[in-house]
Amino acid sequence: MGSSKMIKLGFVGFGTVGQSTFIALERNLYQIKQQMGYELEVVSVAVKDLEKKRVVELSGVRLTDDPFEVVLDPNVDIVVELIGGTEIAHELVSAAIANGKHVVTANKALIANFGDEILLSAQNENILFRFEAAVAGSIPIIKALSESVRGNRIKAVVGIINGTCNFMLSEMAAKQVSFVSILSEAQRLGYAEADPSFDVMGTDAGHKLAILSAIAFGTEFQFEKIHVEGIQNVLPEDIAYAKGLGYQVKHLAIAVKTRNGLELRVHPALIPLDHILASVDGVVNAILVDGDLSGPLMFSGAGAGGDATASAVISDIIDVASVAHTGGTRFMAVRPEKLSDYPITAFTESVSGYYVRVEAKDRPGVLAEISRVLASFNVSIEAIHQKEAKEGASTTVPIIILTGRMAEKAIREVCEILASSDSITGSAICYKVEDFQWAT
Amino acid sequence: MGSSKMIKLGFVGFGTVGQSTFIALERNLYQIKQQMGYELEVVSVAVKDLEKKRVVELSGVRLTDDPFEVVLDPNVDIVVELIGGTEIAHELVSAAIANGKHVVTANKALIANFGDEILLSAQNENILFRFEAAVAGSIPIIKALSESVRGNRIKAVVGIINGTCNFMLSEMAAKQVSFVSILSEAQRLGYAEADPSFDVMGTDAGHKLAILSAIAFGTEFQFEKIHVEGIQNVLPEDIAYAKGLGYQVKHLAIAVKTRNGLELRVHPALIPLDHILASVDGVVNAILVDGDLSGPLMFSGAGAGGDATASAVISDIIDVASVAHTGGTRFMAVRPEKLSDYPITAFTESVSGYYVRVEAKDRPGVLAEISRVLASFNVSIEAIHQKEAKEGASTTVPIIILTGRMAEKAIREVCEILASSDSITGSAICYKVEDFQWAT
Repeated sequence: MGSSKMIKLGFVGFGTVGQSTFIALERNLYQIKQQMGYELEVVSVAVKDLEKKRVVELSGVRLTDDPFEVVLDPNVDIVVELIGGTEIAHELVSAAIANGKHVVTANKALIANFGDEILLSAQNENILFRFEAAVAGSIPIIKALSESVRGNRIKAVVGIINGTCNFMLSEMAAKQVSFVSILSEAQRLGYAEADPSFDVMGTDAGHKLAILSAIAFGTEFQFEKIHVEGIQNVLPEDIAYAKGLGYQVKHLAIAVKTRNGLELRVHPALIPLDHILASVDGVVNAILVDGDLSGPLMFSGAGAGGDATASAVISDIIDVASVAHTGGTRFMAVRPEKLSDYPITAFTESVSGYYVRVEAKDRPGVLAEISRVLASFNVSIEAIHQKEAKEGASTTVPIIILTGRMAEKAIREVCEILASSDSITGSAICYKVEDFQWAT
Repeated sequence: MGSSKMIKLGFVGFGTVGQSTFIALERNLYQIKQQMGYELEVVSVAVKDLEKKRVVELSGVRLTDDPFEVVLDPNVDIVVELIGGTEIAHELVSAAIANGKHVVTANKALIANFGDEILLSAQNENILFRFEAAVAGSIPIIKALSESVRGNRIKAVVGIINGTCNFMLSEMAAKQVSFVSILSEAQRLGYAEADPSFDVMGTDAGHKLAILSAIAFGTEFQFEKIHVEGIQNVLPEDIAYAKGLGYQVKHLAIAVKTRNGLELRVHPALIPLDHILASVDGVVNAILVDGDLSGPLMFSGAGAGGDATASAVISDIIDVASVAHTGGTRFMAVRPEKLSDYPITAFTESVSGYYVRVEAKDRPGVLAEISRVLASFNVSIEAIHQKEAKEGASTTVPIIILTGRMAEKAIREVCEILASSDSITGSAICYKVEDFQWAT
C-alpha cells in the first residue's frame, strides 16, 4: 500500500450496517479525502443474494455472493466484516488476516468468543484489527478505553449497553406496565427482535461486557465467566417502589476490580435517581469508566442503528487506512503486550446493598422478624417500608427493605429464610443497589 | 528513537498538573510498560524555582530553572509543556519542534491563539503535537473529534466547558443566591481563581471552543471571532423562573454549522430540563457532539484538577511514544490536509427562541402591548407569564416571555422597544433558549 493515494475496501455482508456504511462513505468521500489526503474506495462487496434489489448503486464494484472472494481479493487493502454471527465470520476474518488484509468489524459475538485468537494472529501478522462498532454503536468506547485512559488504573466500567433492555425498562417505568406488554411494543417499533431472548436475557450485554472488560483491564475475553441475568422477571411494581425510595431500575453491565480480582456481571440493579446513568432512557447506550486519575467519565449516544454503527465502522476504517497510507505499522494499541491475569471472582462473593421485597401477611411482628433475620447476618437495614395492601382485598402487604452492604451469597440465604417464614407468602424479590462506590 | 525500549520525557513547568503527571507516571509505570512494551522515563524537568521544597522525589532527573535546557536536551524525545501562558510557552514549543522533539501540552491559550502556526510547523517537521488536556480535563474530546467521528459531517458541538461557571450556576440554582455570594464560596473551595474574570466572563470557555470548533469542523483556530459572554449578570430569579418553565440555565459554548457558515458563541442559555446537559452539575464538564451519522454523542467527566488533567496528558504521551517507539510517522490526524473555510457568521444573525423578562407596571394592557411588539416582528409567543409582585410592595411585576425562533438582532430590537415603553421599568433581561434543533 505504502504511499498509494487510494485505499481499497472489501465489504463482506451488506445488510443494514453494510449499506449505511457504504452510503455514508460515498456521501462524505470528499470530506474524508480533504481531511486525510487519500481516497477510500469500495472495490468489492459480498452479498447473500445477488438477485436481490438494492437501493444502493453498486456500479464499478465487484459484486459476489462468495465472501471468500473478497477476503482473498488482491485488490482489497481492508476487509470490512459486517456479516455477523461467529462461524463464517470467524473463517473469513482468519483468512483475511492470513492473507495480509487489515480488518474492521462490528461483530461483538465474534470478538467476545474468539477475540484472543484473532487479535493474537493479527498482531503476529502485523495486521490491524479494529472493532469500535462492536460495542455501543457510535460511542467511541473502545478507543477511549484502549487509548484515552491508558495512564489510569481502571477501577470500574459500568454500562447500559443493551438498547432493548433499556428501552423496555424505561417504558415499564413511565407507563407502569408489564414486561410482556412492553415487549410487543418494542417489537413493533423495531427495538426488539422477533426472538428477543438474546437481548432481554442479557447475552448481548454479556458479549459487550466481555469486550469492554478485556480492553479496560487488559485481560483475556472471558464471556463464559460473566454472571448474566436479563430483565424478563422485572416487575413494574418494583420499578415504582424503587423510584419511591429514590432509585431507578437499570439493566447494567459491570466490570469492577476488587481486592480479590475482577467482578464481571450483567443484571438489573437499582441506581440512585440523581446518578448520571439514571437519566439514560430509551434505546440510548451509556458507559461510565472510572479511572484512578480520570475520575468518572461518561460516554453516551446511539447504541444501535445503521448510521450510528456506520459512524464507528468508518472511524475504524480511517484509523486503519491512515496507518496503511503512511506505511507505518502503528503500535497495536488495543491489546497490552502482556495480558493481566486478574481472577474473575464468583458472583456470590460480590458485595452491595440490596433491595428486597416480600409479601407479608398483615399481622404484627413481621417487621421485627425481618429485622431479626438481617441482624443475624450482621447486616444493617437502611430502610424498611410496609406498603398499602394492593387493591382487590389482598391478604398480604408488600414490605420493602434496603439493606446495607453484604455479599450476594448472604442475601440469598436471607431471602430463603424469609421465603420459608409463615408470615411471608411466595419468594423474596431481590436486586442489587449500586452506589458506584468501589471498594478498592 | 526507532526501536529503543525507553522513551525519554522532558517536563517544562512543574505545578499542579506537572507534579500530578509525574507522580501518576511513576505509580503506573509498570502497567504502562506491561501494556505498551516500552518504558517511559522523565529525564529532565524545568521548574520555576530550584530552591522550592517539593513532595515529589526527583532523584535521577536533571533539574533546571531554564526551560530551554529541556527543549534542547538531546536526551529528550517528548517535551511535556505544562508551563501555561502564551509567551514563553510559545517560544519553548517552537524551539522543541524545530529541534525535532514531539510535544504534549495542556495549554489551551497557546493553541487557541497560535494553534495554526504550531500545528503547521509540527506537520512540516514530522513532529507529533498533542493537546488532549487543553480542553475538558480527562474527557477525551480531542481524540473523539479528530478520530472517532471522522466519517461524520459534524452538525454541532455544544459544551459545558468551564467548571467555575457551571459550579456557580448550579449553586445559584440550588441555593437561590446571587453571583457575588457564590463567587466567594467558589473561591474558598478552589473552584474560582482570586481573579475570576478569565473564567466567569467566558474567555476560558472561548479558548476551548476555538479549539473544539477548529478540530470538529477542520477550520483555523478563530478565538477572536467567537462571541463571548460570561455569567456575571445572571440573576438567581431568572434561574428560578426558567426552572418553573422547564428549563435550566447553563453557560454553553456552541459551535453550530448553519446554511451560512459557522456560529461560534459562548453565553448563558436556557436548555430543557430533560436534556442530558441539564443535569450536568458542579465542576463537571460535558460536551455534546452531533454528527450526521453518529447522532448526539455525550462525553462528560472531570474538567479540571491535577489527576484528571494528568490522565489526558499521559494518554497523549503514550500515543506519541507508541508512534515514536515503532518508528512510524503516524498520520497527523488532528488537522485536515486542507482546512475548511466556513465563514464565521455574526452573532446577531444567530436564530433561536428567547427567554425575556421585563418588570412591568401592574396595569391593564401591558401583556397586550408586549404581544403587539412581538407580532410586529412576526415572532410567535410560546408562553407568557405574569408573576406575583415581589415582596416589599414593589410597584412592578415580572413578566416572562418565551418567544418562537428569531434572530438575535431582532430580539435586541424587541428588547429596546420594550425597555422604552412607559409600562415597563428598567431594561429587558434576555437569554437564548437552546432546543438542540440545528437548522441545516
